[in-house]
Amino acid sequence: MPNRLPFLRLAAVAGLLVAAAAAHAQASAPAPAASAPKLRTAADIVREAPDSAWRRPDPNDVLAMTLPSGIVWIELAPRFAPLHADNIRKLVAQHYFDGLAVVRVQDNFVAQWGDPAADDDDATKGRSLGDAKRTLAPEFFISDKGLKIARLKDKDVFAPVTGFVDGFPVAADPRTHRAWIAHCYGTIGAGRGMTVDSGSGAELYAVIGQSPRGLDLNIAPVARVLQGMELLSSLPRGGQNMGFYDKPEQNVKITKVERLADMPEAARPDVRVFRTDTPQWNEVIESRRNRKDAWYVHPAGAIDLCNITVPVKIEAKAPAN
Amino acid sequence: MPNRLPFLRLAAVAGLLVAAAAAHAQASAPAPAASAPKLRTAADIVREAPDSAWRRPDPNDVLAMTLPSGIVWIELAPRFAPLHADNIRKLVAQHYFDGLAVVRVQDNFVAQWGDPAADDDDATKGRSLGDAKRTLAPEFFISDKGLKIARLKDKDVFAPVTGFVDGFPVAADPRTHRAWIAHCYGTIGAGRGMTVDSGSGAELYAVIGQSPRGLDLNIAPVARVLQGMELLSSLPRGGQNMGFYDKPEQNVKITKVERLADMPEAARPDVRVFRTDTPQWNEVIESRRNRKDAWYVHPAGAIDLCNITVPVKIEAKAPAN
Repeated sequence: MPNRLPFLRLAAVAGLLVAAAAAHAQASAPAPAASAPKLRTAADIVREAPDSAWRRPDPNDVLAMTLPSGIVWIELAPRFAPLHADNIRKLVAQHYFDGLAVVRVQDNFVAQWGDPAADDDDATKGRSLGDAKRTLAPEFFISDKGLKIARLKDKDVFAPVTGFVDGFPVAADPRTHRAWIAHCYGTIGAGRGMTVDSGSGAELYAVIGQSPRGLDLNIAPVARVLQGMELLSSLPRGGQNMGFYDKPEQNVKITKVERLADMPEAARPDVRVFRTDTPQWNEVIESRRNRKDAWYVHPAGAIDLCNITVPVKIEAKAPAN
Repeated sequence: MPNRLPFLRLAAVAGLLVAAAAAHAQASAPAPAASAPKLRTAADIVREAPDSAWRRPDPNDVLAMTLPSGIVWIELAPRFAPLHADNIRKLVAQHYFDGLAVVRVQDNFVAQWGDPAADDDDATKGRSLGDAKRTLAPEFFISDKGLKIARLKDKDVFAPVTGFVDGFPVAADPRTHRAWIAHCYGTIGAGRGMTVDSGSGAELYAVIGQSPRGLDLNIAPVARVLQGMELLSSLPRGGQNMGFYDKPEQNVKITKVERLADMPEAARPDVRVFRTDTPQWNEVIESRRNRKDAWYVHPAGAIDLCNITVPVKIEAKAPAN
């Protein structure tokens, strides 16, 4: 540990383990000496939560994207984008993404990956999508009917209703009965061209900066990063327009993308995501609204949908049960 | 230019040149073929704005922080943090930061730099601050009396009033008559310890992720990054608690920090920041609320204070005038 630097050694404690859980998934992330035992910070709440406060995502919806720097863990959102989720599963099953690359990193916006040889206007170019579809109907939103959103009481700049559904940050509009995954840090969407039905999931992007909520309802969010965001957010930015890399050799190769369900049982890690329909989650949110850390002198009294990281634990060995 | 990838080749055009102006300061940033000539995107508005739409910051308030990867340009905010701005100028004048390092990069939060050898509890450790003060009175906010804020009509999650003052994103509360620089992407603050008066400006951090507005009114924002954010945001994340680097050799050395005013006339670039008290700026904001790009099918109708990048132009040769 380096010398005691003033700022945020305490300030970030509440956010720390939550972030750490998401970023490093160390269930054993050390509790900083700074966190007073009496306080119930978000970190404390998460650490002390019962097993029932965690869910195990469907292994068919969990993807491991291996980059040279490590693994980016992704959870598909079939509830919000069933056609895209199905198409992406097909692409992964036939190893479509293996050997492709991150071709674009635009600062404070998105990292984008796909086939560098692909060409929207020429289906003969680039890798075959096999039995996956080249285009899909738009899945920019779903009906809010029957959708249980763990609502935030806080204001939102862009939507009348915000909250969480199975760990995904969700916005909704009761007037139009639309609900959609918000473009928050870590949200993954399916690239499209000028027409709304030109996306397929073969081209994906992850938000790496201030949430570009202006994209909401304009493109299909299909997944979110569970762990490994820092592997995408710390990539060199591209020098071309919109952050495309100048030279092909700058592209960041994707070693492989595989589904958790396709990994051999023994090698399959235990992936758990903090549930967002529990009292513990409500307590986490409240602790983020009004930080318990002694460092804080002014409780914000509010939190933004995109400021909340849903904790994730990914452990190498599956538990006995 | 790589192959035509669908997503955002058009979507980001409006944001692109604005971002490019801030990120690369190429007044000559190429207009993407994608931008239809008739549209007035934010990029168009900025490109076509008269010289009077730009201001030249006081050279005493502009800092160039040279990292191995390039220069991070910074503008101090003496109006909001006069004591810190003065202390930082003193530190820069005596070359305090030269040879120090970025010691902490926490994903989706902050990059922090200062003296790796410093120790809050032991003034004898680390580099001397010379004639600069070791601690300063807190400057978390100023009075809103007489402060002209170019107000946004949009909602904000954290404050009743938001807008811009000389390019700085500002929030305010008419009930308390407080105004402060908001913790947006690119905002620079002065680290502090447990006491509100323990900061000095010798330890600084820049926001590199989703705006942590919960820090507002808890710490002193003292500056903002004008250009070169990507040099901080793309740094490797630290593996220690809160993103501190594991080993000293991972620290990112700061070659030097110098004031624009101290550079020889000939070597001094022309630094211009888009004014935020003009009709052109209002037009930029409106174009961000409701994107003009044909790609968009759903205008957001709103914009978040921290989603707007104030254009900056930094040109190597000073103009004749």
